[in-house]
Amino acid sequence: MSGNIYEHGLDRTPANYLPLTPLQFLDRCADQYPDRTAIVHGTLRQSWSQTRERCRRLASALVKRGIKKGDTVSILAPNTPAMVEAHHGVPLSGAVLNAINCRLDAEGVRFILHHGESKVLFVDREFSALAAKALEQLDSKPLVIDIADVEAIGGELIGAMEYETFLAEGDADFAGVWPTDEWDAIALNYTSGTTSDPKGVVPSHRGAYLMSLLQLTDWGMPRRPVYLWTLPLFHANGWCFAWSITAAAGTHVCLRKVTAANIFAAIDQHGVDHFCAAPIVLASLATATAAERRSFSHTVRVRTAGSPPPAAVLKSVLEMGFEVEHVYGITEASGTPVSSFVNPDWHDQPMDERARLMARQGNRSAVLEGLRVADPATCEPVPWDGKTQGELLLKGNVVMKGYLKNPDATASAFSGGWFHTGDVAVMHPDGYIQITDRSKDVIISGGENISSVEVEDVLHRHPAVLIAAVVAQPDAKWGESPCAFIELKPDVAAPPEADIIAFCRERLAHYKCPVRVVYGALPKTGTGKIQKFRLRELAGSREAITELSGS
Amino acid sequence: MSGNIYEHGLDRTPANYLPLTPLQFLDRCADQYPDRTAIVHGTLRQSWSQTRERCRRLASALVKRGIKKGDTVSILAPNTPAMVEAHHGVPLSGAVLNAINCRLDAEGVRFILHHGESKVLFVDREFSALAAKALEQLDSKPLVIDIADVEAIGGELIGAMEYETFLAEGDADFAGVWPTDEWDAIALNYTSGTTSDPKGVVPSHRGAYLMSLLQLTDWGMPRRPVYLWTLPLFHANGWCFAWSITAAAGTHVCLRKVTAANIFAAIDQHGVDHFCAAPIVLASLATATAAERRSFSHTVRVRTAGSPPPAAVLKSVLEMGFEVEHVYGITEASGTPVSSFVNPDWHDQPMDERARLMARQGNRSAVLEGLRVADPATCEPVPWDGKTQGELLLKGNVVMKGYLKNPDATASAFSGGWFHTGDVAVMHPDGYIQITDRSKDVIISGGENISSVEVEDVLHRHPAVLIAAVVAQPDAKWGESPCAFIELKPDVAAPPEADIIAFCRERLAHYKCPVRVVYGALPKTGTGKIQKFRLRELAGSREAITELSGS
Repeated sequence: MSGNIYEHGLDRTPANYLPLTPLQFLDRCADQYPDRTAIVHGTLRQSWSQTRERCRRLASALVKRGIKKGDTVSILAPNTPAMVEAHHGVPLSGAVLNAINCRLDAEGVRFILHHGESKVLFVDREFSALAAKALEQLDSKPLVIDIADVEAIGGELIGAMEYETFLAEGDADFAGVWPTDEWDAIALNYTSGTTSDPKGVVPSHRGAYLMSLLQLTDWGMPRRPVYLWTLPLFHANGWCFAWSITAAAGTHVCLRKVTAANIFAAIDQHGVDHFCAAPIVLASLATATAAERRSFSHTVRVRTAGSPPPAAVLKSVLEMGFEVEHVYGITEASGTPVSSFVNPDWHDQPMDERARLMARQGNRSAVLEGLRVADPATCEPVPWDGKTQGELLLKGNVVMKGYLKNPDATASAFSGGWFHTGDVAVMHPDGYIQITDRSKDVIISGGENISSVEVEDVLHRHPAVLIAAVVAQPDAKWGESPCAFIELKPDVAAPPEADIIAFCRERLAHYKCPVRVVYGALPKTGTGKIQKFRLRELAGSREAITELSGS
Repeated sequence: MSGNIYEHGLDRTPANYLPLTPLQFLDRCADQYPDRTAIVHGTLRQSWSQTRERCRRLASALVKRGIKKGDTVSILAPNTPAMVEAHHGVPLSGAVLNAINCRLDAEGVRFILHHGESKVLFVDREFSALAAKALEQLDSKPLVIDIADVEAIGGELIGAMEYETFLAEGDADFAGVWPTDEWDAIALNYTSGTTSDPKGVVPSHRGAYLMSLLQLTDWGMPRRPVYLWTLPLFHANGWCFAWSITAAAGTHVCLRKVTAANIFAAIDQHGVDHFCAAPIVLASLATATAAERRSFSHTVRVRTAGSPPPAAVLKSVLEMGFEVEHVYGITEASGTPVSSFVNPDWHDQPMDERARLMARQGNRSAVLEGLRVADPATCEPVPWDGKTQGELLLKGNVVMKGYLKNPDATASAFSGGWFHTGDVAVMHPDGYIQITDRSKDVIISGGENISSVEVEDVLHRHPAVLIAAVVAQPDAKWGESPCAFIELKPDVAAPPEADIIAFCRERLAHYKCPVRVVYGALPKTGTGKIQKFRLRELAGSREAITELSGS
């Protein structure tokens, strides 16, 4: 024996090397905590042992229907027990789970079923009309299984059978079809398509496993959290909390409808201590009526993403006993690889300053191997000065395998050995990043980059403005200049265009201020994101603007 | 394209697939929290940025001295900053870290340096005499570097140079030699050798990474723990807390000498909130003098292993504000794959019952893929009845690569696709395991298995007994019968043998009771474990017993 002594007789064996997969978390809960509550839904309480049995039946029934490894199985449902079960039972059949956004239109759903080549579609009865319309236009139709959820109100049954009947076909002792390679696909999650056709993001078992552990470690979660499903499970598998909560032997508290009253009730009735939600949900808690509110004595921890939580909302919810943390979620990394850890030092700051610090998206998790704000062409990092813009690049084992059937988009996303998020950011001196814009939304005026988000932030401070979106419009002199689209608060009269521009000029460099203001409802995607590509089209055409103003 | 659509265009790339390694945790801390305290040692405070610089220098200096990937680098030191740095800097050179137990004798140290083929030995001056003696008898001598730790008292310098001088040879910007395969060895940890020559356990970067995350998730650790180094870092890299604490951006509080006074002082002065310790350390806290004690208002969480914490000790430390959890640690799994989660229901139980429940080693972590108590020949599990004994078997990614240069022991340890711990256990109906004995320590009398631990537990309740060890002695009629070796409390007279036997008969089935009692100091290993193999030798020979009694 010579050379490296560690290269001999120390090989992988079945005892020390197994594919990393979140599927094993369920078995551990069912073995170790069989009678503990896994799922709460209305008056339903389901133990871990029952949940495993149902997931095994689901996997077995799929296999009996001919589902093979690498087949796609779709589900169109809100955050119900069936949705939680699908996250464990569908991959246990060897299939890839495709949870479809319920807020899409029929064409959006059809596109996904077609592109993902779905073999089975589970559909909650609330969305059966949407599904039926999507299926109409589909050439190769999947097997459709209705979910007559106990808490659903109405909705036709359109499928071959109901979910419970389908489960009854399965074997309660089914061992499952486990991944033989941790690189195997576990899910298919479509992007929302703000800029193009939705792309099918494919995470591996390995990536989903590591994001599940990332959530627990990066959030410093205790054992046995009681987690409320406010974040849609169809958003990147609920940022992998579908599996994290199972790994922590916690309780999944389901929620069909996200309202302030329902959230307060769940905290009160079930002892919910963790949830994830968009700032708009926090705003609804802050403005809830006395009848909707419940006081609580424990700390309820919240991760929020999508846009920075405004100072007034933060102040209000912190006072109620919520602990809020801003995070950066992205489907291509299966969750939130970046989070804004609230440095205890910040507590000494005035609320506005605290809000400003907390509004930043944060820094990289220990489980993410690389993060930089960089020149997208060279991947060279920008200075940590809080000013220089660059693209947010990520690298690591939680990053997707790629986009399904889209090698060009995959190669482009991974160019230079980094995943290109398409988000423009600055790096602050303390290592926290702040997203300033989507790459495609940057306005370039006279050679200067203008962050549409920065302009929108100013507009959001105007008392008449509900939502604002700023895009580039063609400008003969400057190339591009900012055009503001504004949705007004209810029953508020539109201020003169000049007032809005003046409001901005008091707060921004003049070249960043809108040169035109358009009022009207803003076009949004199924997930509620503003479709800036439509606004850009509108900004080039007077007719289009008239149409928007009249909508 | 046909068949599995997920098999095309979704390959591993540098953006989405990197070797799992705990080394990246240090970079993240240095990048994100450069000024935060990484290490506390006496009056020393060292930031993450300083710590990374020193670890890079260490790695660079090793490479400059010719250290290559797969070379072994040893360290003989208590829990000092140099020991924490070695855990990050040595693997960053591509080398394998071998942290040697300081409690071994010179022959034990020599054996390890020889067997592990160490190229470099770092030695804390407190242990330079031990090292010098070990080196004397070594044919191929490593480069020796002295560590003149600031808190060390005395000790010759025996090496080629001092640690700080060595660091100065290194490059502060060294990029490091990173693992190209996560299966690469990261450490070499020798077992204590209660039954045979020590074996060299080799964990991989992957395994150490996952155990680091296991500790954080399985213990439900918060971010930024302040962790006190009571557990020796030479015990399986401090159960991987060397890296866990870095992953959590916590603070390593070093400790040269584990005493109740030092522990209380660290809690008081540094806000220590987590540590790991043997029950004997908890006992020292329980019996600390008023002058040694400090009260504290925060919860201090403790993981304890090695033997079950006695009820009286538990009661006492719980009342002081410690939260105690019993875990099962084993070098071959790089830490504690099994832990006894304290079910909140247990709090309603009387203290004796709580202690009985907490004394069990626990159940499997979410990060461990498999655990069973089984027939070692067939690997078939025993019933979950709390009575049937079997061997504790483990399976998973935290299990070692194998034993260095010992393919026979490796093959035997992994037979049947499970890692055989050599520990005998029962599985309780609630899925918690309880270790009843080491396989080699079971006494077989008239065909019945007698757990030596069970008999020892009874002997420990006798007021005169400090430590008891029970082994088999040859018996013409029964094959084997129990022989008790007893070390008495100071200044206590030896009770008549018949009294001890009668004491046992009141509490145990008669066939389990010792047929002979021998008084004297018990032979122990360097780690303080009782050498039962020596007692077994003694139990067969009158001369040997006489020798023990006289020691």
